[in-house]
Amino acid sequence: MEVYEQPGRLDQPEEGALLAAIDIGSNSFHIVVARLVDGELKPVDVMSEKVQLAAGLDEAGTLSEEAQQRGIDCLRRFAERIKELPRSAIRAVATNALREASNRREFASRASAVIGLPLQIISGYEEARLIYLGVAHTLADDTGRRLVIDIGGGSTECIIGERFESRLLESLQLGCVSFSEDFFPAGLLTDKGFQQAKMAAMQELLSIRHNYRRMGWQSCVGSSGTAKAINQACIELGYSSGPITAEALNQLKAYLLKFNHTDDITLSSIKPERKAVLPAGTAIMCAIFESLDIHTMEYSDGALREGVLYDMAGRLRHEDVRERTINALMKRHHIDTRHAANVEATALIMLAQVSDSWQLQDNEFHDMLGWSARTHEIGLTISHNRFHRHSAYLLQNCDLPGFSNTEQQLLAFLARAHRRKLPKDELKLLPEDKQLPYIHLSLLLRLAVILHRSRSKARLPAFKLQVENQKITLTFPSEWLQHHPLTQTDLESEADYLKSIDYKLKCS
Amino acid sequence: MEVYEQPGRLDQPEEGALLAAIDIGSNSFHIVVARLVDGELKPVDVMSEKVQLAAGLDEAGTLSEEAQQRGIDCLRRFAERIKELPRSAIRAVATNALREASNRREFASRASAVIGLPLQIISGYEEARLIYLGVAHTLADDTGRRLVIDIGGGSTECIIGERFESRLLESLQLGCVSFSEDFFPAGLLTDKGFQQAKMAAMQELLSIRHNYRRMGWQSCVGSSGTAKAINQACIELGYSSGPITAEALNQLKAYLLKFNHTDDITLSSIKPERKAVLPAGTAIMCAIFESLDIHTMEYSDGALREGVLYDMAGRLRHEDVRERTINALMKRHHIDTRHAANVEATALIMLAQVSDSWQLQDNEFHDMLGWSARTHEIGLTISHNRFHRHSAYLLQNCDLPGFSNTEQQLLAFLARAHRRKLPKDELKLLPEDKQLPYIHLSLLLRLAVILHRSRSKARLPAFKLQVENQKITLTFPSEWLQHHPLTQTDLESEADYLKSIDYKLKCS
Repeated sequence: MEVYEQPGRLDQPEEGALLAAIDIGSNSFHIVVARLVDGELKPVDVMSEKVQLAAGLDEAGTLSEEAQQRGIDCLRRFAERIKELPRSAIRAVATNALREASNRREFASRASAVIGLPLQIISGYEEARLIYLGVAHTLADDTGRRLVIDIGGGSTECIIGERFESRLLESLQLGCVSFSEDFFPAGLLTDKGFQQAKMAAMQELLSIRHNYRRMGWQSCVGSSGTAKAINQACIELGYSSGPITAEALNQLKAYLLKFNHTDDITLSSIKPERKAVLPAGTAIMCAIFESLDIHTMEYSDGALREGVLYDMAGRLRHEDVRERTINALMKRHHIDTRHAANVEATALIMLAQVSDSWQLQDNEFHDMLGWSARTHEIGLTISHNRFHRHSAYLLQNCDLPGFSNTEQQLLAFLARAHRRKLPKDELKLLPEDKQLPYIHLSLLLRLAVILHRSRSKARLPAFKLQVENQKITLTFPSEWLQHHPLTQTDLESEADYLKSIDYKLKCS
Repeated sequence: MEVYEQPGRLDQPEEGALLAAIDIGSNSFHIVVARLVDGELKPVDVMSEKVQLAAGLDEAGTLSEEAQQRGIDCLRRFAERIKELPRSAIRAVATNALREASNRREFASRASAVIGLPLQIISGYEEARLIYLGVAHTLADDTGRRLVIDIGGGSTECIIGERFESRLLESLQLGCVSFSEDFFPAGLLTDKGFQQAKMAAMQELLSIRHNYRRMGWQSCVGSSGTAKAINQACIELGYSSGPITAEALNQLKAYLLKFNHTDDITLSSIKPERKAVLPAGTAIMCAIFESLDIHTMEYSDGALREGVLYDMAGRLRHEDVRERTINALMKRHHIDTRHAANVEATALIMLAQVSDSWQLQDNEFHDMLGWSARTHEIGLTISHNRFHRHSAYLLQNCDLPGFSNTEQQLLAFLARAHRRKLPKDELKLLPEDKQLPYIHLSLLLRLAVILHRSRSKARLPAFKLQVENQKITLTFPSEWLQHHPLTQTDLESEADYLKSIDYKLKCS
């Protein structure tokens, strides 16, 4: 796979600067601010709050106003810590509770207003990748294949990886907050509830057990609050002296079930809010140990937020994992790489010509336009018939490491809009502040595709693209267009399409 | 790729019997009845009518009542010819006009009532495959790679193949009926109209030109009415003596443009209805010659209807191309073949136990259940998250040689319904007479998937499945279920799902 140059992209050499990651979890919110020194991230400020967002989801999947307010209040406190940082040095990601919430866009836009940057809702797959990255950076570099388990409030991520690369990734619908409500309602502890919780977790694990065991691992690591609490409890109770063992876990289970209510649990090393979800977390952990036949598990301090930081640091050093993802996607779908490179180059030249008039200077637009040029044809592997729709379906639904859900939606939109009618309904589904820039990006992609439609090896002539609001003027060297009647006809059809959204295209 | 045995499938050794194919085209309807002798098909009855269905499509894509009535009247005459044949010896396929019609289901159900069997609307890709098959059987077997061009009333199929195998297949939105309306309205012949029609066709051809020229061919063949009429006209006018040449085509164009109206064209070898669409057909043919750089084109009598007949004959001899399609799909999507084979075997054993009670004796149900067992997991290549939906999307939208659109929809439904909630909305979209059998098939697939969920190598015990309307009883050897608590829990969840559609599942 060729790697494409990216002319016109602004560099951001921020070595030595501060970076911040906000993790909007189903149980807790976290923020970490760190300094980037020689490729290492040194935390300078860390803060966590138990917001229990997932507990505010009703049966219909609506996030209550009360829970939203708890979240917004917490983010307001976080915002204090990052008000001096440039926007590009901060990333905020949200996980399962917002993946599930039907009113996630309402919350996301309130949250964005408070923290001053977009909140990215990431898929379970992407969450798993980032967790692994965070954990891998806290561990020695020589332990062979490792299994990482992260039991969260709404989902549990299971990853097998080596060094900094994840190999198998899954996000399961097992969470200590949701399981607490389902199996220990109102905090009541019963043997039966524990047994049912464990059985439900075993059922979910069935879908990965076979593949994970087949790949195997040399060491096992737990991350995040549940693993930390279990580890601390086992040490406090004298069941183990470091790693969590299968035996210690069984003893902890027996200990917890001696109490009738989570409030009654006596464990001085565990905070009260954590006690409320510890039995559910322990039941899930028991199921994982049994299902995957684990004997011992180390606890690691690395987690999602560290993964987000290292991922940002990589992007700043031009090791953007999204670049690799796009190239892998092109390979998997047998993309005509020469054609893709031509379309990309032309689209980016156009972008450079109009980025001031259309306010598309941000690197985001440069990157997304380039990636869309390389992937707009992947739907051809499904069928030539309506392939732009298939490309959009794949870009929206494939696991794309490094991309947030919104970024996938935007890439899908560009593919969907690259030929035939402009998809007005899909446009309205984009976040409001993305609609104008992305309709403009789609127009650039469309023009680039038209100019390369013959897939000819002949070089395009120098052209000039000018825009002024909704007026687009494309100028070729004199008589070039007359000698390319097919392109001319295509551009005339394009002018008709653009009329439908009140844009005017003039070519000469 | 393993080939699976198909226990329980009824054989149909009909060598020597009559087969019939009905082709419901956008311009003409055709029927051919043929006798199968030593693997060859000898036509015994052939009939064509110029129904011009595509001319009855309004701008919104609705097929007018008048056009529908013309079609139904024609099918009534066809039905006369096949009333003695068994249903399984007849296949009726419909192409572009019905692919485009928004009220296609209305027409399909009226047509099915008249001919006494389902009318299958096939994709352009499948149409191309069948045309190639029909043409290949009329040609000598030694001509290397060949390009086959079939200009129809609503679409044009371009295929490159060798012997009986197609290698590149495309269906383009170029049709002599639709182009006549767009560029020669009311039959008025103008230079400009011809030029515009040719340019529009060149534009469509751009999408395939590059790939087709790269693969290349040794001989070129035209099939169906347009190629036949052009060939006859060129011979009548003395422009060529057999194959259509580029030069003869240009002479024909000049000849046609001497007239002001299609009614005025003097050509004794061409019927009046064909004259009306000959200029549009010639413009499309000129574009194809120029775009693909063709010098000469032979005319072949083989066409879609012959392809349908040979495809049926293949199925009767157990050379069902659908079998190959499914196996290729499994390979492309890295299906766990051992698991698929286990699920298939169990599902088919269940089918054998309930086929009388649920009236699922037809081979169709046996085949479709088996194929769905092999493909229900293909969506995993997109993402594990909601993969049953991705499987359904792929089965619905991929080019699947041998399958009609409805068959793809039914396979997609089985994949969509194989886990989680039963998709009631999607069920309602199935043809009415398929809803009951396919909800039953989906229940069998679900049970088979549950029984193999652990992907264990251990053999399942003998079980007994009994059904009585909406009551399902699944019996295992005594105590087996108690020793498999995960399966038991899964079956309990399944009983809950089934309640939502008023079915009752009892397991012991």
